[in-house]
Amino acid sequence: MSNATSSRPKIVIIGCGFGGLEAAKALRSAAVEITLIDRTNHHLFQPLLYQVATAGLSAPSIAAPARFLFRRQRNVTTLLGDVVDIDVAQRAVVLENGERVSYDHLIVAAGATHSYFGNDQWATHAPGLKTLEDAFEIRRRVLLAFEHAERNANSTAPEANTATREPWLTFAVIGAGPTGVEMAGTLAEIARHTLPEEFRRIDSRRARVLLVEGGDRVLQAFPPELSAKAKSQLEALGVEVLLAHKVTQIDDEGIRVTVNGTEQMIACKTVVWAAGVAASPLGRLLARACALPEGAVDRAGRIAVEPDLTLAGHAEISVIGDLALAKSHEKDGSSKPVPGVSPGAKQMGRVAAKNILARVGGRAPQAFRYIDYGALATIGRKSAVVDVPVPLVGHLRFSGYFAWLFWLFVHVYFLIGFRNRFVVLMDWAWSYMTFNRTARVVAGNEAFDNKASAR
Amino acid sequence: MSNATSSRPKIVIIGCGFGGLEAAKALRSAAVEITLIDRTNHHLFQPLLYQVATAGLSAPSIAAPARFLFRRQRNVTTLLGDVVDIDVAQRAVVLENGERVSYDHLIVAAGATHSYFGNDQWATHAPGLKTLEDAFEIRRRVLLAFEHAERNANSTAPEANTATREPWLTFAVIGAGPTGVEMAGTLAEIARHTLPEEFRRIDSRRARVLLVEGGDRVLQAFPPELSAKAKSQLEALGVEVLLAHKVTQIDDEGIRVTVNGTEQMIACKTVVWAAGVAASPLGRLLARACALPEGAVDRAGRIAVEPDLTLAGHAEISVIGDLALAKSHEKDGSSKPVPGVSPGAKQMGRVAAKNILARVGGRAPQAFRYIDYGALATIGRKSAVVDVPVPLVGHLRFSGYFAWLFWLFVHVYFLIGFRNRFVVLMDWAWSYMTFNRTARVVAGNEAFDNKASAR
Repeated sequence: MSNATSSRPKIVIIGCGFGGLEAAKALRSAAVEITLIDRTNHHLFQPLLYQVATAGLSAPSIAAPARFLFRRQRNVTTLLGDVVDIDVAQRAVVLENGERVSYDHLIVAAGATHSYFGNDQWATHAPGLKTLEDAFEIRRRVLLAFEHAERNANSTAPEANTATREPWLTFAVIGAGPTGVEMAGTLAEIARHTLPEEFRRIDSRRARVLLVEGGDRVLQAFPPELSAKAKSQLEALGVEVLLAHKVTQIDDEGIRVTVNGTEQMIACKTVVWAAGVAASPLGRLLARACALPEGAVDRAGRIAVEPDLTLAGHAEISVIGDLALAKSHEKDGSSKPVPGVSPGAKQMGRVAAKNILARVGGRAPQAFRYIDYGALATIGRKSAVVDVPVPLVGHLRFSGYFAWLFWLFVHVYFLIGFRNRFVVLMDWAWSYMTFNRTARVVAGNEAFDNKASAR
Repeated sequence: MSNATSSRPKIVIIGCGFGGLEAAKALRSAAVEITLIDRTNHHLFQPLLYQVATAGLSAPSIAAPARFLFRRQRNVTTLLGDVVDIDVAQRAVVLENGERVSYDHLIVAAGATHSYFGNDQWATHAPGLKTLEDAFEIRRRVLLAFEHAERNANSTAPEANTATREPWLTFAVIGAGPTGVEMAGTLAEIARHTLPEEFRRIDSRRARVLLVEGGDRVLQAFPPELSAKAKSQLEALGVEVLLAHKVTQIDDEGIRVTVNGTEQMIACKTVVWAAGVAASPLGRLLARACALPEGAVDRAGRIAVEPDLTLAGHAEISVIGDLALAKSHEKDGSSKPVPGVSPGAKQMGRVAAKNILARVGGRAPQAFRYIDYGALATIGRKSAVVDVPVPLVGHLRFSGYFAWLFWLFVHVYFLIGFRNRFVVLMDWAWSYMTFNRTARVVAGNEAFDNKASAR
């Protein structure tokens, strides 16, 4: 399928996350026509999204309009649109208004969202953290919870008493992966260092921050000794780390957990969901359309790809990033799974782009091999854990202040755009010195409008 | 009315705009108990709100949490709350949940919102610009309009053609006061300088920006020669200034105007309302509660105050800022109206605070006298008009680049907080050099969700 005005191959990329962005950039000098389609108008630097949710950074510091990023790459057309179907036979992507965008090659990088493991009714009580809108909603709930507590204390309203106030000062983060650890650590710092001076009726330092994890340690992707260090660093910040606590219910009143077979109710008004992800529904849709065998889509909705990241029988369709159930094909012939982290998505984006150009040029595509640069997680304003593989040596593992500086360097380095790097560094220097957080503004006319409780 | 734990006078301030903030600050060393109540959690620097609406600044740069601003002023308790009633007889303010906050002295600084002159159904089609939420909504509509146009152009969808695309590229700003002039000038700059490189299917420079004004000149609060200069500066930026155009209808399709008795339809998808303000309903409520005579509340909802800014017969209630129909009492015994600008609100805040302390100390209150520091309006990234009264000389009036530098200096100087001044200056230096606007991010999962058209 080539269109009338051009014989250059048409490449459609769905999604402008780390994978899609990198694929488009890798094609910058190619004689192709790229259409980049995303549901939002921006690329989001998700590793720092928790900072927006905790009022440390403003949204524009970690997001940039996709079309701005590609303004000088003339072979990219950016479209804001929602892909609702893929017509594999006719090689066209179908948008929400019925518009069809045809392709010669398709890169699907639609990513993942949070999953409530079948309990979607929990979503209103425990927002997850994937989009800017999620981050604003969490920020709103956290800041308004302290406002509710202040209003409640000493109030003349009949329901005002400790029993109704404590739930406003109890914050539960579900899931102790990197996002959960970052959220819990930062919330504890806010309660203990940012807010105490500002309230007159409550003592914000008495707020409880719970990190609730079903497994037996935090940061399970890290080695056990770093998990142990992360746990003690969290506890030093004042976080109550509840391991082996399985969440069985979330509602207006709080969360219900089972510990060693015993059920327990924890009253809390603010719950953040950091426990599970599910791939975009485009995975299942593609599996059906390409008549892939049963089992090509895993429980998390990820779709199995060939070694070159294309779909079996459809070399014109590549799937990358969090949506791909990809393997790293090692030099020794073995293979291992690729973790769902941004370096993985970026590497897949580059390989998918190269393989398309190889096919266009009549060359053989390459198998994907993941290069592991290690894993990082930050715990608070000056501690982190780092696990970096070092050739020949094995692993470099450290935690604490220097780990935090390393984390900071890496995150600022990979932020998109010089200006954002500068602004984020300034904001951090500022909040490091003053403990203040600069983005503590909640938009909305009404003090306690429905969004705070109903969404 | 004093409470059991303290004999210090209790002062309640409603509203944390320029007036309320200044009143609370003026009481910083007084032996009083202040409760500051606002519907939002922040003080907003409204003169720069149009920059948030046009993606030049992020919200935290021009807003700061009220309780942060008063964290060290220990006699202030900040409450997030919505005042629904004032019990004048019992001297208590009633909040949205029925909670009562009693006062010995009350300062009402609840401000104003936009008014559609009885056509409230226009609100969904033409948002005004008073709150951060308004600014986000306008930003969203403006940015998504260009996205719609790009999607529409060359699209395979049947409705795609020039007739359906042009309305997305037509922007109407209703009302040519300072806000309308600032919005129109900035929108024209965005279309002509920020966006052209970024779109492939449309030419953003062809977008029309209309400034629609019922009167016969822009900036009617300024002298006619500055209005004329502002108009030609706007036209140099590409704004179509439509004077003597009265808006008679606003709906999904666009606006209907009458010019010299003839009706005319202008198809446009993005309309910004900058035409009218109405004072908070607390004005009418107070007038009834205090049994003020008919006519104490004007058409815009402002309530007449005594020379000392209190209400007739209720020396314990002061009304200031945009809610007050106040007069400036000159030294020669004459009086003149006070314009609805931030210096007026701040001066009233200081006088109301001083008068309360005078009464508490058994001294006579003073009459309010407004000191006019002049008026400023900016038109684009390097032009403005300035009208400053100079004692003995008369008026200093100038426009153009130096006026813009003057405008910049004044606005940065009056911003709250050192950090915000720094950040805003950096952002402006950046966009001055690059024409880029740093806050062009629209939150929201869906490309064209209902908010864009339905709100």
